Amino acid sequence: MRVALTNFTPEPERTVAAAAKLSTSQLSAAELKETLTPVQIDKLLSHLISAGHLSPFEHASFTFVIDGISRACSHQLVRHRLASYTQQSQRYVAVKSLEYVTPPTIAAKADLKAKYNDMVQQAHKLYTEMVDAGVPAEDARYVLPNAMETKIVMSMNARELMHACSLRLCLKAQWEIVDLFQRIKEEVQKVAPRLGAELQPKCFALGYCNERESCGLFPTLKEIKGGVSTSAQ
Amino acid sequence: MRVALTNFTPEPERTVAAAAKLSTSQLSAAELKETLTPVQIDKLLSHLISAGHLSPFEHASFTFVIDGISRACSHQLVRHRLASYTQQSQRYVAVKSLEYVTPPTIAAKADLKAKYNDMVQQAHKLYTEMVDAGVPAEDARYVLPNAMETKIVMSMNARELMHACSLRLCLKAQWEIVDLFQRIKEEVQKVAPRLGAELQPKCFALGYCNERESCGLFPTLKEIKGGVSTSAQ
Amino acid sequence: MRVALTNFTPEPERTVAAAAKLSTSQLSAAELKETLTPVQIDKLLSHLISAGHLSPFEHASFTFVIDGISRACSHQLVRHRLASYTQQSQRYVAVKSLEYVTPPTIAAKADLKAKYNDMVQQAHKLYTEMVDAGVPAEDARYVLPNAMETKIVMSMNARELMHACSLRLCLKAQWEIVDLFQRIKEEVQKVAPRLGAELQPKCFALGYCNERESCGLFPTLKEIKGGVSTSAQ
Amino acid sequence: MRVALTNFTPEPERTVAAAAKLSTSQLSAAELKETLTPVQIDKLLSHLISAGHLSPFEHASFTFVIDGISRACSHQLVRHRLASYTQQSQRYVAVKSLEYVTPPTIAAKADLKAKYNDMVQQAHKLYTEMVDAGVPAEDARYVLPNAMETKIVMSMNARELMHACSLRLCLKAQWEIVDLFQRIKEEVQKVAPRLGAELQPKCFALGYCNERESCGLFPTLKEIKGGVSTSAQ
Repeated sequence: MRVALTNFTPEPERTVAAAAKLSTSQLSAAELKETLTPVQIDKLLSHLISAGHLSPFEHASFTFVIDGISRACSHQLVRHRLASYTQQSQRYVAVKSLEYVTPPTIAAKADLKAKYNDMVQQAHKLYTEMVDAGVPAEDARYVLPNAMETKIVMSMNARELMHACSLRLCLKAQWEIVDLFQRIKEEVQKVAPRLGAELQPKCFALGYCNERESCGLFPTLKEIKGGVSTSAQ
Repeated sequence: MRVALTNFTPEPERTVAAAAKLSTSQLSAAELKETLTPVQIDKLLSHLISAGHLSPFEHASFTFVIDGISRACSHQLVRHRLASYTQQSQRYVAVKSLEYVTPPTIAAKADLKAKYNDMVQQAHKLYTEMVDAGVPAEDARYVLPNAMETKIVMSMNARELMHACSLRLCLKAQWEIVDLFQRIKEEVQKVAPRLGAELQPKCFALGYCNERESCGLFPTLKEIKGGVSTSAQ
Repeated sequence: MRVALTNFTPEPERTVAAAAKLSTSQLSAAELKETLTPVQIDKLLSHLISAGHLSPFEHASFTFVIDGISRACSHQLVRHRLASYTQQSQRYVAVKSLEYVTPPTIAAKADLKAKYNDMVQQAHKLYTEMVDAGVPAEDARYVLPNAMETKIVMSMNARELMHACSLRLCLKAQWEIVDLFQRIKEEVQKVAPRLGAELQPKCFALGYCNERESCGLFPTLKEIKGGVSTSAQ
Repeated sequence: MRVALTNFTPEPERTVAAAAKLSTSQLSAAELKETLTPVQIDKLLSHLISAGHLSPFEHASFTFVIDGISRACSHQLVRHRLASYTQQSQRYVAVKSLEYVTPPTIAAKADLKAKYNDMVQQAHKLYTEMVDAGVPAEDARYVLPNAMETKIVMSMNARELMHACSLRLCLKAQWEIVDLFQRIKEEVQKVAPRLGAELQPKCFALGYCNERESCGLFPTLKEIKGGVSTSAQ
């Protein structure tokens, strides 16, 4: 998996802060943008988040080039509807090279791993045979497994990034999409450390875990009410 | 594939027409809804469409239960972002029974069909073996092919249905999603014939085909300019 | 202000529950919808909300006819983007009768009230004079005040209704839009009591107030950390 | 009215083209972005538009600071839901200086203009009197006219800019929002001439006018069928 932040709104944190300031100011947005100090920006972003005023974060947009995630993972990713995607098509691009993802739980068991590799290779071999026999790529791909790698370009604004990370950085999410959003967070942190720090699993904002069982980071509400500490589990 | 319209805004055409009428009337929407005659509704909907005033069509919502489409098809379907989806999860539901889709181009060739069936069965067998060996269902599914069937509940309003059908009823779209939207159109036509009639491939609105090659229904712009009639192709 | 729920997805709570159940079940949505008992539905909706799985609530859509809110209020309302609106136009409909909203804080002061009424009437008189002199209605309306009444048809699904109510039922929101969403909540409660009960200001979900000052219903985080009880304020 | 493009996705046209190319290529998006020539970019964008493949245009985002439009205009602007807005609030910011818009049709008639100016000044005077008497700014503003100026920050991607311009550059749209989008188009053209050229009223794509009456640029469908040339009108 490779994730690269290829484009983003320049000065994303200043842009968000200046827009937010506008709604309660007589100054123009251009004036505000110039005069804000880093300390003011930091304070303003903190206030917006604690007050739940998240719409100004939409003015900072980030475009990622994502290579080498499985189709299983991309199927989950594109369910986030407030974002833009352009994905490599299995309809138009014949899958020539065999690139696929192996989950760690399978890689950990030598016998299953061997069978898994063999199965994926056989599926791809039949795929190629069908394409060579005149079956359209869009139909031959029905035999390809979820493991096959795909490429996707995604644009998402900072508000939606915070929302998606709240769900996908939770350790109860599926391992590959957790991995993907950790890399997305790292990319954002390089250019916008303050925003990057806000990309957190939902338990940080809630103050508790709302999954059936906690990963240990925060106790569930049941545990809090029952007086059971997480470390005692 | 089974498509059932299980819920929809009652009196969808009257609802759209009454809302549209409101924007240029002194009457209340409630009054308008009662007084509109079928002829007036029909005329009003025609005007809205020819003038491109499509937002009133958003007030009519339709919920479909879709069973037995492939994961290849559902991956395309959920790319329509202005709609709501709840899909059967391969993460939480272990795939016990083997139900899958076979594209007609594969079914048509006896030898490939046999190999295809065999491959899907072997993949499912390995899936089951891995789940039995303790691999989580969410990881074991990486070996399952795109052909596997899924179930999905979709809600979409009439405006987005018109847009999605403009793309997906085009015969250049992928055969399974064409089939899906033809069934969706049939379901809508049963309860809202006027709206159903507007669910058409894009060429009907354009007056020409904007694909690289026409299916023959309408000529391409190049053919029109070049004076080549479609029947002469 | 008059708010009427004129259309909604039949059996909205059952619809949401059946869709949600689908994602973790082998049964079809149609089967699920028939077999769910009221107790199961209630339990399932509670679980979805506490776990933050809100997307199934999108399958229940509600259409309201709203008459007699001010343009000041409608301007705020249409900022909720995940909804559909058809509004009476001041461009095409000449404003013949003078209908406007008077805020209670103005109505409470006899002298200001008299001046306010007079000013609105004068503005409308000049509006009529300009229209009669050939100024287009779309330009003459520039002189009309924010107080002028408007009509709007709004469709919003249950998920977005919960979100909008979390913001607009907060007593720190503007009085007219609080009033509007209280009536919306009442309309929903009549046909879907379980869903209606979930339409609550944000403090109910947070467990504290995230405004600068609390209305007294919940303490702010600062008050909680400082050990100050709200009743002691 | 002042419109400034303060932020945008760097190299917007190259970004769109590289994303689009990805869907039918074996190369990575990063490789594609580097290798595309200006001629290839131009050709690719033309193809995407003629084929109606508009989703890649979503990867280019533009942020505008807009000062000095009327509330009448901003009310229309924010109806475009696939965009992000932060607007100066009349709830929190007391309107101290009197800045307002006068439509040309009113400015053209000396007597009406004088009455209009006088009315707006009186309304603002009463507003100030009410605020001084303790009426909250959010209520006092009910007396302020639609003409009052507002400031707004708007982010919109290139796909939605094309859609909004198709509606708002039509000369049948309201003069102030036509003016606004003409300035938006000029700002885009400075940094992305190819994209800017695509910001056109809907008649350019349709090849005819779908309003009741044409402005003369393109004939209506009725006129085309009836054989009436626009120049002969």
